Amino acid sequence: MSPPFIVDGDVSAANSPSPPLIGRLASVYSEVQANRIDQPLPFPSVLGKLFDIVDGPPSSAAGNPAEIAKLFPNLFGQPSAMLVPSDSGAVKVDKKLKIGVVLSGGQAPGGHNVISGLFDYLQDHAKGSTLYGFKGGPAGIMKCKYVELTAQFIYPYRNQGGFDMICSGRDKIETPEQFKQAEETAQKLDLDGLVVIGGDDSNTNACLLAENFRSKNLKTRVIGCPKTIDGDLKCKEVPTSFGFDTACKIYAEMIGNVMVDARSTGKYYHFVRLMGRAASHITLECALQTHPNITIIGEEVAAKKLTLKNVTDYIVDVVIKRSKLGYNYGVILIPEGLIDFIPEVQQLIAELNEILAHDIIDEDGIWKRKLTTQSHHLFDFFPPAIQEQLLLERDPHGNVQVAKIETEKMLIQMVETELEKRKQEGAYNDEFKGQSHFFGYEGRCGLPTNFDSTYCYALGYTAGALLQSGKTGLISSVGNLAAPVEDWTAGGTALTSLMDVERRHGKFKPVIKKAMVELDGAPFKKFSLFRDQWAVENRYISPGPIQFVGPASNVLNHTLLLELGAQA
Amino acid sequence: MSPPFIVDGDVSAANSPSPPLIGRLASVYSEVQANRIDQPLPFPSVLGKLFDIVDGPPSSAAGNPAEIAKLFPNLFGQPSAMLVPSDSGAVKVDKKLKIGVVLSGGQAPGGHNVISGLFDYLQDHAKGSTLYGFKGGPAGIMKCKYVELTAQFIYPYRNQGGFDMICSGRDKIETPEQFKQAEETAQKLDLDGLVVIGGDDSNTNACLLAENFRSKNLKTRVIGCPKTIDGDLKCKEVPTSFGFDTACKIYAEMIGNVMVDARSTGKYYHFVRLMGRAASHITLECALQTHPNITIIGEEVAAKKLTLKNVTDYIVDVVIKRSKLGYNYGVILIPEGLIDFIPEVQQLIAELNEILAHDIIDEDGIWKRKLTTQSHHLFDFFPPAIQEQLLLERDPHGNVQVAKIETEKMLIQMVETELEKRKQEGAYNDEFKGQSHFFGYEGRCGLPTNFDSTYCYALGYTAGALLQSGKTGLISSVGNLAAPVEDWTAGGTALTSLMDVERRHGKFKPVIKKAMVELDGAPFKKFSLFRDQWAVENRYISPGPIQFVGPASNVLNHTLLLELGAQA
Repeated sequence: MSPPFIVDGDVSAANSPSPPLIGRLASVYSEVQANRIDQPLPFPSVLGKLFDIVDGPPSSAAGNPAEIAKLFPNLFGQPSAMLVPSDSGAVKVDKKLKIGVVLSGGQAPGGHNVISGLFDYLQDHAKGSTLYGFKGGPAGIMKCKYVELTAQFIYPYRNQGGFDMICSGRDKIETPEQFKQAEETAQKLDLDGLVVIGGDDSNTNACLLAENFRSKNLKTRVIGCPKTIDGDLKCKEVPTSFGFDTACKIYAEMIGNVMVDARSTGKYYHFVRLMGRAASHITLECALQTHPNITIIGEEVAAKKLTLKNVTDYIVDVVIKRSKLGYNYGVILIPEGLIDFIPEVQQLIAELNEILAHDIIDEDGIWKRKLTTQSHHLFDFFPPAIQEQLLLERDPHGNVQVAKIETEKMLIQMVETELEKRKQEGAYNDEFKGQSHFFGYEGRCGLPTNFDSTYCYALGYTAGALLQSGKTGLISSVGNLAAPVEDWTAGGTALTSLMDVERRHGKFKPVIKKAMVELDGAPFKKFSLFRDQWAVENRYISPGPIQFVGPASNVLNHTLLLELGAQA
Repeated sequence: MSPPFIVDGDVSAANSPSPPLIGRLASVYSEVQANRIDQPLPFPSVLGKLFDIVDGPPSSAAGNPAEIAKLFPNLFGQPSAMLVPSDSGAVKVDKKLKIGVVLSGGQAPGGHNVISGLFDYLQDHAKGSTLYGFKGGPAGIMKCKYVELTAQFIYPYRNQGGFDMICSGRDKIETPEQFKQAEETAQKLDLDGLVVIGGDDSNTNACLLAENFRSKNLKTRVIGCPKTIDGDLKCKEVPTSFGFDTACKIYAEMIGNVMVDARSTGKYYHFVRLMGRAASHITLECALQTHPNITIIGEEVAAKKLTLKNVTDYIVDVVIKRSKLGYNYGVILIPEGLIDFIPEVQQLIAELNEILAHDIIDEDGIWKRKLTTQSHHLFDFFPPAIQEQLLLERDPHGNVQVAKIETEKMLIQMVETELEKRKQEGAYNDEFKGQSHFFGYEGRCGLPTNFDSTYCYALGYTAGALLQSGKTGLISSVGNLAAPVEDWTAGGTALTSLMDVERRHGKFKPVIKKAMVELDGAPFKKFSLFRDQWAVENRYISPGPIQFVGPASNVLNHTLLLELGAQA
């Protein structure tokens, strides 16, 4: 198929009098982008043959199985499904299907390949099927806003980053009215199935949708796919969420560059905040890839009940130790959600939300008397700019917007202040200069690595197989990822088996628990074994830019390899 | 030679009881880094053979030749030198040389390869020569702090980013005492030559040093090499400074990622500030690589005498136009030095520096009465956070630190305010959300592209040839860069020919004029031809990560190609 786009800056060709093209069809492509489109991907051999689907034993839940069973009477206990090669190919290949697909939540590199894989499955095994892409996330389902995805439409998005093929959204299908709207769409489009590509919340939502459709005796089945750069949606059967690999490698490239700069310049401490609010997987992975002098892992801060003063002192102590060794520079990684992990900050913010809702913030600070002593001290410990942010930046519900706080700048100021104190005490006599960085949006929409491209394609292809064989309420599961791609396994895992309940507003709500950094897991253990060495020696690694061919083009991320036991 | 480093995270091997290794020798390398070390580079064929050096006609100066002639009585008028193949090889190959090399100023990808090229020249053509690396920039020359660069020492830095082999510094050799120190070092080490790798200031300094050595009848010759990611050191014979290619490609990768994110999310305007304070070459090159909706070029702002209000209105008008087309997102590039280019801001800062030196800034703002009316208005036009920065951030001389102003955040606030006004007037009814980015340090120390690796190696190799043939006061010049590498030319250009004078403290000072973005040059002309289209259509290009092998690994930057007439 000839590419329906213009390659590498040939802008003049775009001056055509024809009506404006939309999205990628109107795009000019860089040479790397253009080359990626036609890049053939390796393929798990089980997906290339005729296969049967074999069910495992009945499943339970991650917690509170009795409650999960009540919430999902039709789905609870479903077995996992595994694709196995079969000469007969028991899965029917003749019936045409009508399938919908939706991208839900934040961007992650590889989403387009899940859709390509699903599309190709339908082409290969259910010729004549129709694939609808719901536009703008779950709202597209509710409003029945969709586009029919054809070979030509999908082509320019193959192996490309972003979610712009059909865009995404953060709406949820929650209320009875919203479920009704989803049912209407399913019936109007006569959907045999729906693939929901999203994170923990979106997959919980997918399972509720599957339960709802089944309870209403609709034929529409629902399959989830694990997406999030944060890496916090995973379990034994779903070893990783897609996008994590690419995002970490993009951030690690920049961290590596900054490290070489720090060592060359010899006079800056670079404080790098990394995306990932709920869990610190990205920060940990970047640390394993680059060996920074200091890495703060939110889960450890929470487990050890550290205060902000503890964190500041830890950094300051390393800075002083390094100063004595003659190093007046360094690199420090901080997870975006750091202050969410600090119990005393949580407490302060809760108190502030309460006070700000009812009281006036007087300039003389009389309002502060309403804070508990501990929170009062903590508030005063914050640099003025952060105090201001705490008081002024509010979300539409009037709550303090923790996400807006530039933690890296805050820590620089706190470290400065503490070092000044130590200087007075004669414990330090260098000049400390901090440089702040936040790497966030840069990593969400990069060109997917070979791993993410291949993994996503397999996830989408598998989702098609699960739908065709009548499965619902499963999450597409591609495993054995440390092995060569041809030996990867493919199947589906009961979404209810990942669930626990949380009590909200007096009711049990099902949730897929976020996978946090495990302090006794292999990645954290490796990090904690070496961090003291990395602190004082400079064992920086600069991973360099992601390569698509040649050396390093097929290196997996450390977290995945360590969790699979494939790296010591 | 076997690599004296540990590859890719094999940290345990570093737990040896031996004394700590220093710098790269103690480093663990990523797979990409390790692979780059042994990467063979293409080589201009003229450097691979025996050659003669042929002089051109006498040179003049970029401006005020009479004054330059007075300032450089020994060097003025020197011809350019060109390497030409020769069967006899008139350049002597037997005499051992003692050569010093220094890195001066900010990091730029490729510096290590200039040193490798120089070292290899000496190995190939003056076996037994000694190469000294002065540590920490020109201060290393003055203090005679150096390291002897051996094959083993240099090896792990080949094709690697950063300046950490010998580090850099920003000192200048200016006073008679400092020149004396440099002479003493040259004599102590019995230097036949010195290679100064730096930007416009450093090359001016190199020429003064060459003049001084010659006037004192020292044998030490001085050759410069054109380094700066900012791209503002170039002329006909020196088509580009090294590092510009790599830095722009690193920034463009991230801009491309942010563009795809903007289009996928559909709700943010990303304001990206890019390094490059004096000239806007980086911003222009990134625009040509990625096609942002809005690009501000400082030189144009200055030429058209635009005010900050003009710039704000330009952005606001595009935002409104896009809103009407249904696009509530976009990407905007801003050069780091933007506000330096705005005459009214220059004026305000001059007045502020004067006032802050003598007056107290009272809270009631009575001090503001000392401002001219125009400056007073401008000050009030700034968002409060910027007002604070203008008053509080001072350099050691008490001057306002313009470089510390986060222009991208300032513009977001100004655009927000203006859009709010337009909303009141009924001209706009979208919700504007800005996201700010600053890409700086991330680009200075990346792994050099194939172009920068090759170009730098040739610059260093050529510098060796110029020194050996007795040349001084030249800048190493490698040309014909749009042709295949084997056809590149090599030679040297009289540094005095790049110079003009500036009047400072009643004296003429020689300066190599910074090469600014030419508004009638091919790169700006191409940009201005397309920017209106890029503003309203979304013709984003995502260049993707730098590739070292395979597709796009040998693409040159647009600025260079356009300036060489090699791209329409």
